[in-house]
Amino acid sequence: MLQAVLQTVDARRDQAVSALKEFLAIPSVSAQPQHKADMQRCAQWLAEQLSLAGLEVKVMPVAGGKGHPAVVAKNKHEPGRPTVLYYGHYDVQPPEPLELWTTPPFEPSMRNGAIYARGAADDKGQVWAHVEAILAWQAHGGLPVNLTLLIEGEEEIGSENLGEFVAAHRVDLRADIAVISDTILFARGIPAITYSVRGLVYMELTVTAAAVDLHSGLYGGAVPNPLNILCELLATLHDRDGRVNIPGFYEKVIPPSDEERLMWAKLPFDEKQYAADLKLPALAGEIGYSALERLWARPACDINGITGGYQGPGAKTVIASKASAKVSMRLVPNQDAVAVRDAFALAMRQRCPSCVKLEMECFGQAPAVLVPLHSHGIDLASEAIKIGYGIRPVLIRGAASIPVVELIKSNLGIDTLLVGFALPDDCVHSPNEKFDLDALHAGARTAAALYERLAKLEVRR
Amino acid sequence: MLQAVLQTVDARRDQAVSALKEFLAIPSVSAQPQHKADMQRCAQWLAEQLSLAGLEVKVMPVAGGKGHPAVVAKNKHEPGRPTVLYYGHYDVQPPEPLELWTTPPFEPSMRNGAIYARGAADDKGQVWAHVEAILAWQAHGGLPVNLTLLIEGEEEIGSENLGEFVAAHRVDLRADIAVISDTILFARGIPAITYSVRGLVYMELTVTAAAVDLHSGLYGGAVPNPLNILCELLATLHDRDGRVNIPGFYEKVIPPSDEERLMWAKLPFDEKQYAADLKLPALAGEIGYSALERLWARPACDINGITGGYQGPGAKTVIASKASAKVSMRLVPNQDAVAVRDAFALAMRQRCPSCVKLEMECFGQAPAVLVPLHSHGIDLASEAIKIGYGIRPVLIRGAASIPVVELIKSNLGIDTLLVGFALPDDCVHSPNEKFDLDALHAGARTAAALYERLAKLEVRR
Repeated sequence: MLQAVLQTVDARRDQAVSALKEFLAIPSVSAQPQHKADMQRCAQWLAEQLSLAGLEVKVMPVAGGKGHPAVVAKNKHEPGRPTVLYYGHYDVQPPEPLELWTTPPFEPSMRNGAIYARGAADDKGQVWAHVEAILAWQAHGGLPVNLTLLIEGEEEIGSENLGEFVAAHRVDLRADIAVISDTILFARGIPAITYSVRGLVYMELTVTAAAVDLHSGLYGGAVPNPLNILCELLATLHDRDGRVNIPGFYEKVIPPSDEERLMWAKLPFDEKQYAADLKLPALAGEIGYSALERLWARPACDINGITGGYQGPGAKTVIASKASAKVSMRLVPNQDAVAVRDAFALAMRQRCPSCVKLEMECFGQAPAVLVPLHSHGIDLASEAIKIGYGIRPVLIRGAASIPVVELIKSNLGIDTLLVGFALPDDCVHSPNEKFDLDALHAGARTAAALYERLAKLEVRR
Repeated sequence: MLQAVLQTVDARRDQAVSALKEFLAIPSVSAQPQHKADMQRCAQWLAEQLSLAGLEVKVMPVAGGKGHPAVVAKNKHEPGRPTVLYYGHYDVQPPEPLELWTTPPFEPSMRNGAIYARGAADDKGQVWAHVEAILAWQAHGGLPVNLTLLIEGEEEIGSENLGEFVAAHRVDLRADIAVISDTILFARGIPAITYSVRGLVYMELTVTAAAVDLHSGLYGGAVPNPLNILCELLATLHDRDGRVNIPGFYEKVIPPSDEERLMWAKLPFDEKQYAADLKLPALAGEIGYSALERLWARPACDINGITGGYQGPGAKTVIASKASAKVSMRLVPNQDAVAVRDAFALAMRQRCPSCVKLEMECFGQAPAVLVPLHSHGIDLASEAIKIGYGIRPVLIRGAASIPVVELIKSNLGIDTLLVGFALPDDCVHSPNEKFDLDALHAGARTAAALYERLAKLEVRR
């Protein structure tokens, strides 16, 4: 049966691209209030597609309608079969800065065998690979597993309502294993299963001094300058060795196992080439660690945005009334996200001089997750990737965060298989995001095979 | 004769306000390219007004037409009389942030006995006080001195072409003394002559890392972050004591004289009230100095603007490709502006890690100026202020910069009398800039008296 299903996937190659283009043309930017209606429209569009595939679909309100809706879909569940929870997201990152896009972010454009648009790889293209697999199975009598799809619209803003949503629908979402395709291959031609993701704490700091902007000549030297103070605060976040300088930050960090170190050492990874590909003069980071260790096994702290004072052309001699910055921390397994958030806030508060006002807001927090390396699910996913890509995957950690993995673990008690189809050069979160048409096709084949293999999974009582 | 001239000034009180409103309605923002045509329009408007007053006026191209034009006007010069060079500027600061203005910056609005608009106090209102004095004298047979007006359009962008312009027109601009009204009273009811102004060095720094914005999850910890590095660079600009941390920065600073310290100590100045007026929790600055000393006798370094990464609502997990900041330094007498600029650039370059690219641009530099306290010109200006305000002025230093004072000294060999009419609460460079109608009137009376008194000045051979 799988061979027939795969033939259908192959036959729909062009149709898959057309459908994905429609999906990508909807500017579902969850962070920007002006796209509120687009979010609703995108959820409805997706629900219709899943309906056409024969699933039972609901567009469900989130946070009493205040959040962006979640799409939940199911095939006909039959007793005794394993149940798979597929999670994806239809929202995308803000596309700014727009001037750096070769073609507009919401006008999907084909070049060099790839489709360019915001969300192409993260995560609409990967969601669509699964939809293609589902369509193919449905054309051959139906999926061999009980499948529940949960496709949310708030992943790029920290999935802040998802915990409550999953908790409220715990029975409805009950499953034996979860699947997410929101990660990357290790490199072109080297598919991977990601068994760990980093956690995240995202903060915004605002420093306020005088009630209005002041002339920097008339006042400079005698009044606090929020920009000077904000920079001084942010500069304390790292020590000279590139370590994050927040008390207790590394306390619970556990080093990778010997088996992991061995696996990582075998991976083809050239730090010089990695830097050159990014047009960087050199890599940076915590001293004493390789780039892969820094990305997979060490936490990090980055300023994601900063703003204050005059930003136009030329000179303006002003002392701004306020300045603000967005700062995120990536966490590794065993760090406590809430404790890190609180330690960050405490350190900033203690280091901030009393001549200004400091306000902080948290835009999301989630711990890192580590899925057991040796499990039936990972073995079955490896087989599926071998069918989809023609080569067995490597097992890697991920540097990014997928907070829902921890959320699924804590609310539903199940592990997640992270089987991603994107490439490292897909410019995720950057201008000119893309998704290769080969990736869409290999992804759809892998997903089709994965649903077949997961039918063998042991069913929970 | 002066009494008759002052009566004319008094009689024109309302007409003066109407004329100033027209002047203020022209958005002559020199820093913003979109106002290029408004600059030309403003210069032409001013030239017409001065023509109507019977002066011979030229709108002169600056930097071969690439700069904003300068307005040069003269009455009929007669041999044997002292020649006064009046300098002012018709350009204004950018009005941003617009949302903080109660009424639009270029729709002059009357409230509480003041006129609100960008440029009201800096410097259009003060220029107009002189125009009123000229109109009144011309109505009574003409000014008692040879007067040359030089009103430029590039003061707020650092007067970068003025040095060349003055040098090229050295003979035409030759004078015995210069007068500028671009400073403030010490406090409401306490007029002042400013005998020193601080210098300025204005720099922009841009830090660039990767060629494009990167996902902070996928890359965080292994690549340089331009925002982190920019903040770390900027945080090195001050030490723990609030001193500017650039090698050699204080080397040539000379302390104020005993006479000055004594004068300053007598001035009514309440630091707590000063902070409270600005809605500041506390003042700040270099330890070991009073606020007046910090403002008048100590250099300062302020970040005037900073930008990079995501500045919209909510969260975006991005490592920006580049980040930039505008930084200005206020200099005190005897500091070498070029040496300070070079020391700043060298320190930043030495402190910047090699994993990023650092670019710097200088938007203007000028040394501080100190005019001799005891001189015939200052005595005559004091008498004029007594006539205009009914009270003798105090002698103070200024915290802001008027680069043209040094430029006039070095190109024309003459000192400048800084006789300002603005008030400390005029919100110069801030939203809701204003100029009191009483200030306009007292300024016009003072200017009328000043031209009469300066007729007594000794004439250069």
